[in-house]
Amino acid sequence: MTTAEKIAQISGYWVDRGDEIVAPMQGEMADSEAYTVATEHGIGHLTRVYGTRPVDPVRRAEWLWAEQRRLKQETRLGIPALVHEECLTGLAAWKAATYPAPPSWGASFDDALVERMAGAIGRTMRDLGIHQGLAPVLDVVRDARWGRVEECISEDPYLVGTVGSAYVRGLQSAGVVATLKHFVGYSGSQAGRNHAPVHAGPRELNDVFLVPFEMALLDGGARSVMNSYAEIDGVATASNRALLTDLLRGTWGFTGTVVADYFSMAFLHTMHQVAASKAEAARIALRAGIDIELPAADVLLDVEEPDAELAELLDIAVARALAQKEELGLLDEQFEAAPTELDLDDSEAHEIALALATESVVLLRNDGALPLPAPATIAVVGPNASGHEALMGCYSFANHVMAHHPEVPLGIEAPDLVTSITGQFAGAHVLHARGCEVEGDDLSGLDEAAAVATEADVVIVAVGDRAGLFGRGTVGEGNDAESLDLPGRQRALVERLVATGTPVVMVVLSGRPYDLSWALDGPDAPAAVLQSFFPGEEGATAIAQIIAGERSPSGRLPLSLPRSAGAQPYGYLHPPLGGSTDITSADSTPVRPFGFGLGYTTFAHEDLTLDSDASTVDGVRATVRVRNTGDRAGTDVVQLYAHLPYRSTTRPVAQLVGYARVDLAAGHEATVAFDVPAARFAGSDVRAVRAVEPGPLELWVGAHCSDKETVATTVLGGPVHEPTTSARRVTVAEVRAS
Amino acid sequence: MTTAEKIAQISGYWVDRGDEIVAPMQGEMADSEAYTVATEHGIGHLTRVYGTRPVDPVRRAEWLWAEQRRLKQETRLGIPALVHEECLTGLAAWKAATYPAPPSWGASFDDALVERMAGAIGRTMRDLGIHQGLAPVLDVVRDARWGRVEECISEDPYLVGTVGSAYVRGLQSAGVVATLKHFVGYSGSQAGRNHAPVHAGPRELNDVFLVPFEMALLDGGARSVMNSYAEIDGVATASNRALLTDLLRGTWGFTGTVVADYFSMAFLHTMHQVAASKAEAARIALRAGIDIELPAADVLLDVEEPDAELAELLDIAVARALAQKEELGLLDEQFEAAPTELDLDDSEAHEIALALATESVVLLRNDGALPLPAPATIAVVGPNASGHEALMGCYSFANHVMAHHPEVPLGIEAPDLVTSITGQFAGAHVLHARGCEVEGDDLSGLDEAAAVATEADVVIVAVGDRAGLFGRGTVGEGNDAESLDLPGRQRALVERLVATGTPVVMVVLSGRPYDLSWALDGPDAPAAVLQSFFPGEEGATAIAQIIAGERSPSGRLPLSLPRSAGAQPYGYLHPPLGGSTDITSADSTPVRPFGFGLGYTTFAHEDLTLDSDASTVDGVRATVRVRNTGDRAGTDVVQLYAHLPYRSTTRPVAQLVGYARVDLAAGHEATVAFDVPAARFAGSDVRAVRAVEPGPLELWVGAHCSDKETVATTVLGGPVHEPTTSARRVTVAEVRAS
Repeated sequence: MTTAEKIAQISGYWVDRGDEIVAPMQGEMADSEAYTVATEHGIGHLTRVYGTRPVDPVRRAEWLWAEQRRLKQETRLGIPALVHEECLTGLAAWKAATYPAPPSWGASFDDALVERMAGAIGRTMRDLGIHQGLAPVLDVVRDARWGRVEECISEDPYLVGTVGSAYVRGLQSAGVVATLKHFVGYSGSQAGRNHAPVHAGPRELNDVFLVPFEMALLDGGARSVMNSYAEIDGVATASNRALLTDLLRGTWGFTGTVVADYFSMAFLHTMHQVAASKAEAARIALRAGIDIELPAADVLLDVEEPDAELAELLDIAVARALAQKEELGLLDEQFEAAPTELDLDDSEAHEIALALATESVVLLRNDGALPLPAPATIAVVGPNASGHEALMGCYSFANHVMAHHPEVPLGIEAPDLVTSITGQFAGAHVLHARGCEVEGDDLSGLDEAAAVATEADVVIVAVGDRAGLFGRGTVGEGNDAESLDLPGRQRALVERLVATGTPVVMVVLSGRPYDLSWALDGPDAPAAVLQSFFPGEEGATAIAQIIAGERSPSGRLPLSLPRSAGAQPYGYLHPPLGGSTDITSADSTPVRPFGFGLGYTTFAHEDLTLDSDASTVDGVRATVRVRNTGDRAGTDVVQLYAHLPYRSTTRPVAQLVGYARVDLAAGHEATVAFDVPAARFAGSDVRAVRAVEPGPLELWVGAHCSDKETVATTVLGGPVHEPTTSARRVTVAEVRAS
Repeated sequence: MTTAEKIAQISGYWVDRGDEIVAPMQGEMADSEAYTVATEHGIGHLTRVYGTRPVDPVRRAEWLWAEQRRLKQETRLGIPALVHEECLTGLAAWKAATYPAPPSWGASFDDALVERMAGAIGRTMRDLGIHQGLAPVLDVVRDARWGRVEECISEDPYLVGTVGSAYVRGLQSAGVVATLKHFVGYSGSQAGRNHAPVHAGPRELNDVFLVPFEMALLDGGARSVMNSYAEIDGVATASNRALLTDLLRGTWGFTGTVVADYFSMAFLHTMHQVAASKAEAARIALRAGIDIELPAADVLLDVEEPDAELAELLDIAVARALAQKEELGLLDEQFEAAPTELDLDDSEAHEIALALATESVVLLRNDGALPLPAPATIAVVGPNASGHEALMGCYSFANHVMAHHPEVPLGIEAPDLVTSITGQFAGAHVLHARGCEVEGDDLSGLDEAAAVATEADVVIVAVGDRAGLFGRGTVGEGNDAESLDLPGRQRALVERLVATGTPVVMVVLSGRPYDLSWALDGPDAPAAVLQSFFPGEEGATAIAQIIAGERSPSGRLPLSLPRSAGAQPYGYLHPPLGGSTDITSADSTPVRPFGFGLGYTTFAHEDLTLDSDASTVDGVRATVRVRNTGDRAGTDVVQLYAHLPYRSTTRPVAQLVGYARVDLAAGHEATVAFDVPAARFAGSDVRAVRAVEPGPLELWVGAHCSDKETVATTVLGGPVHEPTTSARRVTVAEVRAS
């Protein structure tokens, strides 16, 4: 291979970027000069062929198949392109299904369902000739101010790791490469500011940020990793060989590709200023272990005649890029028959989207107003009550791309809350008023909202976020928050509605948790509060069914509900002095803790028992009984937490070490057994090596992380044990209903 | 020595703690049983003999001398006690002078004056038989929410290091051991919460937190170090041998004592939970390198028969404790004549306190109202206009101890602002109204305040903090802030005064910087705003003189004025992505930057020139001309900043590498030359080794850190250089007036 051919194979090309290639909606790929030049020697990746503009998928597939044939036939090496797309909440392309956002996956505590969702996403992608998806996001939430919280699963590394691994397995079961991102530390950025420096040492990296990646690689088998934009303790991750090569490939044995987060190779020069030129940035990134420059060749274009080091680095990257194409079967594919009929949002997609949305809605408060009896008149109010955008995250096609194409129809079925409530309560008279916008100070709509509320038997008010990018919207990439009050004047709207005396059900559709203390504990709190983290195309259906009592809410908070921006960063996974103490006047207690969530029935957790020989090598088996103590069927998320005091380094006061969703009829009970491997009890010691140290072990099960409803203590015996991996997940050994 | 004798020599005993020893104010030391038992085998330290209650210093000295004689004569080994006290803003004892708080030292940029102050403090202490002072605090401010910001000098490590070293030299010139605290990282606690975990890696430690300690040890020659309460990346500092022994003694060659921050050895068990018992905590702390348990023996009391390791650890600690007593001449002292007459707040103290207060007041805004012409009627308003407490920090005796003894007179001269303004403007009619309190929601006093404002030609309104501990007050130890708005309803008071139309001069007496955007840039901003960080007993005099124009303000912000709590942590010393960027919607720009401060005249900085052979080994010589461009004499703080892009790790966009106070008559100019050693350009590389890497160097001088008024760029040539110390300070080679 020539140097040009090598560089081509480790570069992307972003079609539809700029005006040269395609007329929106026509899907006609008029090959441009730039494209021709860029692909002259072949091309590594085609970037977001379907996902950049609303293009008809069938016509675009036709172009893609033709283009792959051209690459095979008309370039010297005849190597097709690897096609990658965004797919976090479903393939980000026109007419493709949009599923709930990742915090909803976390709230469901249902990794099996997430795996099913990802399988459906993967099949859609593979049908379209897409080989790699830039998901899942495995960043562990550390600060609610960060705009990309809505792309993350949870603040708990184990929950992120299990659910993230499930996503990987699902996507890859369809033959599509999953991409773990952002490796690593991105979510720890200072003050929740996007791309800001991460202040973290090696132990926090080991015990928090790296855990989900290790799990998704070793348990999930992910075949690609994307570097983080961040710098950690002064080292830009895109330049960090210790992470991208030594740890990833050396320690973990990873053999897939490392792809650059978009533009991050150039950022080594332009942003982090650790490379004096683009050419130097290319060398540094390749040396660190990045294989593919995305979205398109930029710094690689500045690579001139490679010296010996660079030649070797290029060869290594090219070998990995080609190995991945071979693994995908790309090198043998003939691209003869493009699909001619496609449904990217079929009934299975809607079924999965509805199931996951239903499981992820968190009931935060209920004074008995829910489930709603059959009301004669319902007022549906609020900026998030209408419009599909309210249901979707920043990386949905609707909010990521379609916002720039307001003339184009959405292309999928995604009923909003007004529609779903109207459909669900067929006998009721439904009134609607917007009240206010998500953002801004305009209160002029409050009078109308109060008027319809006064007319109604109940008000459902939907507030929260609008997801978007870089200043468009209130959450999403680049939309970091200085305050954790609900955006705009939405609180004033809710308070105005409550003041009417009509019972108010508040639905928060948001991408990050907000300070809802006023709505949960205040003197004028709404009758009921539901939290949903962008529940996707069937989210409104799910919420309507829950409000009507057709389904019972079963989501649990995957993120602590924060007190305020001034109390950030905060996470439940903190050592003794990381929470509220006598030695600070500033309270850190979250408004609702990690794991919290109500239902229409209640559960008791009893008789947590441990086997007698808990050890640093073999872990422990814990058994607990869960009982539905209410008068309705319901689903509990049984949460097993651990605390390991008196180790050589500080340890979290609570950490999730197992969970299980359990459906129980009224009055029924089940026994849940967790086999917790020793690795779950590992923490970095003073050497920054993850070790399971012997000593006391406290385990408990309760309604949330700080509810020690049933407790068992033992001593973890045995030697100091260094597990070879922290990836192994807890096995839920059995769920026996009785 | 017996084990009991050894443990006694490395323990403190806190007299006056509890009721057993002394009747407050009588100063009678009725030896208690507990005291007798504790000192039976001698005692290492006597803890805050003068500083725990308001005791008459002469009578207490008499007791102390007698007690030292008793220890010499009646214990087997005959070793006197080392007496330590708090002394951050002056000896914290009744009737002793109270100087400005540390952020005022930083604001003065006058290390020579701080050295003089510390010398005066040290002489007072030595006169009283005190041997060690628990100051200075060298924590580098990282988050304005932290309550102990008011004990810190600055957010810049070099400023902390130079001013802190000056304090050490001053104190130790009087024969009193200085104690560097809190070693290390304390100020980096999560969300600015006291004792909360510190998220920092080795590079941030090296380049930010450790720098002032290295300077104060190697340049300042400090003879004691106190550990930090904090944990850093999971390792409790009191358990950290790498820091307390390997770095401190191994790398830096320190031979003094490491004393425990109060209770911190026990906290290893009770708080951090890294020791399963107090006995284990003792072993861990001794192993890490702590020599003396303060304030009193606690975990050391649980040490039973020492095994070989513990015996060796005890011997090492005892040897250091005794070596320090010998170094202090304590072993030979006879304690024959206790002082019989003492003035702990003499005219020299007042002179120094006034000079430092004057130099530290920062003029933040002036629409021309200042200096005040001779007004006929002045309204002096606000909760901080009256009462000496408003002038003093948390570690002043007034706020630390006297708050618990309201019946006892203050014992020093400390005029408040009402008094000083009345004295300064002898011809004016001075009205006073309190308006509101520092804390709380009471607005009932605003009408009266507005009424007196309406009557006056000008209003001086003093707002800000009340320093105190653990919930008493708004700033100080344990008083961490969730919001960076001015506490209580003080903003409403100021706005009400501005609304009267009478020109308002706002004086902020605070311990931390607050979001003053409304008062500096808002449509209804006061006419002038002065910021003072607890200016001490002569602070009101200084402010009155500045308001009257008798002195010109010359302080510069040692701390960025924050936008909001939601923008914390923030510091000016950030890499490119640590400030405001296009990729986050959340602005980080401070309301006023580090180094900002106005005067009654203006200065131009011109012709920054560098010698031609700047190198990684020898550094650079930079020369700049400063010119008084106004029509009054004034003092400028010439600030030299550097940026070193394109190193292997990210570097701050601006870092202070030199400063000099320059007095200039109107129209005069001076040339200032800085010899900047290479070590000032060092940063931690990917190995976390501090290195001076060759590459571009940009230097500038301007009115603050981001004002590139005159710029010089060069290339730092030479090899990668690892300076043996970062302690060496910049030399201001010459200041030539012309």
